[in-house]
Amino acid sequence: MIHAAYKHGGDVFGAARSLQCNPREIYDFSANINPLGLSHMALAAIKDNLDLIRHYPDPLCRELRGALTGYLKVASEKMVLGNGASELIYLLARVMGFRRAVVTAPTFVEYGAAITAAGGVVNEVPLLEEEGFALPVPRVKKALCNADVLFIGNPNNPTGGAVKRYIIQSIIDTARTHGTTVVVDEAFMDFVHHQEHFTVLPLLDDYPNLIVLYSLTKFFGIPGLRLGVLMAGEPIFKKIEDAKDPWNVNSLAQIAAVASLADKEYMAQTRQLIWLERDFLHRAISLIPGLKAFIGEANFLLVKIQSSTISSTQLAAQTAKQGVLVRDCANFNGLNNKYIRVAVRTRAENVVLLKVLREIMKGAANG
Amino acid sequence: MIHAAYKHGGDVFGAARSLQCNPREIYDFSANINPLGLSHMALAAIKDNLDLIRHYPDPLCRELRGALTGYLKVASEKMVLGNGASELIYLLARVMGFRRAVVTAPTFVEYGAAITAAGGVVNEVPLLEEEGFALPVPRVKKALCNADVLFIGNPNNPTGGAVKRYIIQSIIDTARTHGTTVVVDEAFMDFVHHQEHFTVLPLLDDYPNLIVLYSLTKFFGIPGLRLGVLMAGEPIFKKIEDAKDPWNVNSLAQIAAVASLADKEYMAQTRQLIWLERDFLHRAISLIPGLKAFIGEANFLLVKIQSSTISSTQLAAQTAKQGVLVRDCANFNGLNNKYIRVAVRTRAENVVLLKVLREIMKGAANG
Repeated sequence: MIHAAYKHGGDVFGAARSLQCNPREIYDFSANINPLGLSHMALAAIKDNLDLIRHYPDPLCRELRGALTGYLKVASEKMVLGNGASELIYLLARVMGFRRAVVTAPTFVEYGAAITAAGGVVNEVPLLEEEGFALPVPRVKKALCNADVLFIGNPNNPTGGAVKRYIIQSIIDTARTHGTTVVVDEAFMDFVHHQEHFTVLPLLDDYPNLIVLYSLTKFFGIPGLRLGVLMAGEPIFKKIEDAKDPWNVNSLAQIAAVASLADKEYMAQTRQLIWLERDFLHRAISLIPGLKAFIGEANFLLVKIQSSTISSTQLAAQTAKQGVLVRDCANFNGLNNKYIRVAVRTRAENVVLLKVLREIMKGAANG
Repeated sequence: MIHAAYKHGGDVFGAARSLQCNPREIYDFSANINPLGLSHMALAAIKDNLDLIRHYPDPLCRELRGALTGYLKVASEKMVLGNGASELIYLLARVMGFRRAVVTAPTFVEYGAAITAAGGVVNEVPLLEEEGFALPVPRVKKALCNADVLFIGNPNNPTGGAVKRYIIQSIIDTARTHGTTVVVDEAFMDFVHHQEHFTVLPLLDDYPNLIVLYSLTKFFGIPGLRLGVLMAGEPIFKKIEDAKDPWNVNSLAQIAAVASLADKEYMAQTRQLIWLERDFLHRAISLIPGLKAFIGEANFLLVKIQSSTISSTQLAAQTAKQGVLVRDCANFNGLNNKYIRVAVRTRAENVVLLKVLREIMKGAANG
């Protein structure tokens, strides 16, 4: 394939090709998606509206904006809707003219990829394992003096660490004195316990140098349809809105999102499931000789391979052969080939993962 | 609404809000979409695969690339797939660093909008009514000496005029001597009779300064799902591929397109219908006192209002009140408030349009 190597998890179609099986037979722990799938209300709404495919999407996303305003408590006028949050990351990197970006290492690789594609340079602040991969606030603040933009994943991918709002606020304050924009990516915020202490959305009105990214693909289980939101004050959102085409949010994504945002029961079930299973999976993985799981606030866990006889790339290849995908973290700057990331899924699926990991690690210990 | 005014047809959701009706009750002649709707095979494939929404789309679009290569006879390595052709227009305007663009007037407004949003300037070559809005090849060639890029709609929107390949080839030859890139937008090419004499896809291998845009949303009736293709040689497609996020083509668009491209009967039916109804509508509109339709090669007709008592904006507002949308062309540079554009639809729908137009023009004559 001559295209840039794909650097993420979630490629069930590629895995199914390799195994010559149906993508539905794959256990995908490599993408961080709601294990309940999409809301039944969303699926019903999609089925009822398939005939609308023959029309252009609503370019103004009228219903969706109303639903999002109700859910996020952010004025519609501050929102740019995207074909997934990733589209918005690339748009803002290109449109805002950021030349010097600061990211943590490790973090979601698309921040750096988008900045680099737009001709900028990326400065990485390492997250240290001995500090539990916590955000090193003084070092981040120090890096701001030479930066046009700082990206913070909250919770951060792949470490799962989340930072409380008052701490991020102090970073945004420092950033403002340097004329630096802060992009806080809250793609996994809906999975955080007591998210009201973590989200920076209430700061939007006070900080013109703040951009918040939000995604509906993870929590609401619609990655195949794509839907992301960028929120910022006027000079920023206007620039980004003008730089995109008018129909970037497809009709079914709009319809699914409106229905999902009304399904309070599904949201509550999702949170209960993730919080319970995250603890279960964390404990169970840490009981496997040679593996150590880091606790986090999101719907995934970073896992360290402490055995010297197997790399993350080998481990991921071995689970994949059994139809179980985990995320090899070897291509995250700041990590190495001793880390994998696994999504938190249903108990039945988690048990399958644990069984496969136990067998492979046993083989590694004996090998 | 504080967002940039929407400048296109096809806003059935906005129209339905105004009329307090269901979008399905709107007769939409303002968007140029296959009146058969999407292929039954595509709809069946979507229904069978709704559960795949819970996975990320195939980032490499493996099946779709295979199907497109078979249909367009272009190597997969030359294709960038987009969330509609519009995404690709904005991407290329921003990524290629085009400062000075040449477009015809009138033409699809997003070429100029994308160039302007990326900080470039647009030079317009007028299409003259007395020349039947034909592409003025000598004037276009003359404009190339000061241009980084030329956009040609083939067929052109909203005039419907198409230009044979050998003529465009002579323009591309001239462009090459000036170092100018030529973007040929073939979004409506599938509706052209004997398209093999018009499409420039066979020239791709010979011209590094040629970019071809293609859309599946119009002919295959899936505007709500979005799907476009950009085709070019290596230095160009690589730049554009790197500048977009990995998951920009949603799963259902991929699935619908693969099924559509296999539905030869649907394609043949569509062409028969459009060719027949285009002639019917052209003749019938021209029989309405005060209206004159221009013949074209696409699935829409440009119509001139020859009556002095009614503008295109008034006419479009009056048809809209009756649930029939036509495209007011007043915001096309090179036209004025005496032109509308109407899509070619089924006979039953076309008869409704004709009835409404006849009544309004009768009123205008008596008014």
